[in-house]
Amino acid sequence: MRTSFVTGGAGFIGGNLCARLLEAGHKVICYDNFSTGQARFTEPLEKNSNFKLLRGDLLDPDFLAYSMKGADVVWHLAANADVRFGLDHPRRDLEQNTVATHNVLEAMRASGVKEILFSSTGSVYGDASLIPTPEDAPFPVQTSLYAASKLACEGLISAYCEGYGFRGAVCRFVSILGEGYTHGHVFDFVCQLRADPGHLSVLGDGYQRKSYLYVQDCIDAMLLLEGCLPEKYGVFNLGVDSYCTVRDSIEWITEWLGVKPEISYTGGERGWVGDNPFIFLETKKIRSLGWAHKLSIMQAVERTVEFLTRNGWVFEARGEYER
Amino acid sequence: MRTSFVTGGAGFIGGNLCARLLEAGHKVICYDNFSTGQARFTEPLEKNSNFKLLRGDLLDPDFLAYSMKGADVVWHLAANADVRFGLDHPRRDLEQNTVATHNVLEAMRASGVKEILFSSTGSVYGDASLIPTPEDAPFPVQTSLYAASKLACEGLISAYCEGYGFRGAVCRFVSILGEGYTHGHVFDFVCQLRADPGHLSVLGDGYQRKSYLYVQDCIDAMLLLEGCLPEKYGVFNLGVDSYCTVRDSIEWITEWLGVKPEISYTGGERGWVGDNPFIFLETKKIRSLGWAHKLSIMQAVERTVEFLTRNGWVFEARGEYER
Repeated sequence: MRTSFVTGGAGFIGGNLCARLLEAGHKVICYDNFSTGQARFTEPLEKNSNFKLLRGDLLDPDFLAYSMKGADVVWHLAANADVRFGLDHPRRDLEQNTVATHNVLEAMRASGVKEILFSSTGSVYGDASLIPTPEDAPFPVQTSLYAASKLACEGLISAYCEGYGFRGAVCRFVSILGEGYTHGHVFDFVCQLRADPGHLSVLGDGYQRKSYLYVQDCIDAMLLLEGCLPEKYGVFNLGVDSYCTVRDSIEWITEWLGVKPEISYTGGERGWVGDNPFIFLETKKIRSLGWAHKLSIMQAVERTVEFLTRNGWVFEARGEYER
Repeated sequence: MRTSFVTGGAGFIGGNLCARLLEAGHKVICYDNFSTGQARFTEPLEKNSNFKLLRGDLLDPDFLAYSMKGADVVWHLAANADVRFGLDHPRRDLEQNTVATHNVLEAMRASGVKEILFSSTGSVYGDASLIPTPEDAPFPVQTSLYAASKLACEGLISAYCEGYGFRGAVCRFVSILGEGYTHGHVFDFVCQLRADPGHLSVLGDGYQRKSYLYVQDCIDAMLLLEGCLPEKYGVFNLGVDSYCTVRDSIEWITEWLGVKPEISYTGGERGWVGDNPFIFLETKKIRSLGWAHKLSIMQAVERTVEFLTRNGWVFEARGEYER
């Protein structure tokens, strides 16, 4: 029986991953500091005797290394995932992403774990010159502190794979949607429309082109990769084979909610400083391993709106952390 | 009169840069913790009233920000520059390069400095698939903790340029040689041959192909870039238009020293784990601005050997730091 160590296991993707790993017969150690993780995500899992929940911080290297003992593989999902407000607290991405990842890698060395899967982001391509963007796109320029920190994490992981004989898979995600989703633009839109169904304020001109992936499709890909980890190190884009505009997503959301808000746009091609107005990843590499996404972007958006509608508590649970 | 703030200004490249900046009529604030910097490099400069030496650490953000007040431009050269022994102390590159660069950028924000030039490395291209390697080479995989940390610094600088309106030039150096050179393979070879002119031990098979640049040629390029900083952010390879093998450099060194050692090779195409066996950078971009190197690799090696021969103290000055 394999033991999986999941950082950020009480988060959106991590919580879903823990559930799937348990279903697949793994023992799971969930490590989370609950800064954005939710006890509601882990509570249903705690009935399973193969699930162990540890409340810990990645910036506590001793407890981290101690907690990791006995694990076979690390799924490193914990991160500050807020892209937009990075400039308001520039140390956060450095500490919670870059330094935290260093600590995860050092804990792996200390506890003898050699396999890692990592959630990176398509944002590392910056304003990509090649779209759809392949994994070996031209050397990118970072436009956000978030993406810069994820790039730093990727560099650390690859250097550890080279230097210490680790095996690693880095997954560059598009935005992930689905049950448990607790931040991002669909969240913001539903949040606004709950407060006032008659008005929606949209950052940018609404023509930003983005790609999304349903969380279970994302986890399918990661589980597949865990079964065929690169001998040393590999990078895999995870996304669907299409994109939509922010205006498309607004149509789907408002239709699902049955509202017809007046929409105001802040204007400009970018939602905020550092936003990439067109994200669309080439996914031939992961598809060549037999993976395919099951849900379209529209279906993923609809599932997300349904989840948010049925789980009003998530709007209260998101606190002051974001700002 | 421009005021230049030089981190690592008591180091090999930094010391030479401070001297050139003073010659060019700059005021210079040299900030160095003397972990590898040498008082012998700064002593001759202290006679100049435009030169201010501050003994400080980049991991002391308050003193750093205080020291930077009044500067117009930051030349961020301080770094742990040891590539080979990174795996022996994996926190060093993270702290002295990545976190230190974050602190430099934050100090710039705090003190209102908006311009930065940064010494990065051709090692960020890893085992480059394209040689000579252009700035927009395919997204690389890091093979050393040193290069991973420099990549992280580049990402931070570009994100600050995007997010806070900084202007930055990142220079990706090949190995730099010349007066003041205090570590690297030419240093090691001369050090060995001083101790025993009859024998030389070489890491790898000696066929590693590397490129080198004379320190004054490097500084010429950086001074040029300071005069035409990109509006936002730009990356520039700095190197010569050729490469040599380690065996070539051994020939030049032994000839200059007049010794005929027996040479033993440890074997393998890499000098150490993570070493890149072929580094050769495309330099069209910096050359298009009017720069050209003046010295060949052979001349740079000879100048370096001459410097080392005349300055035996550098062998004693390098202490236990490296290990």
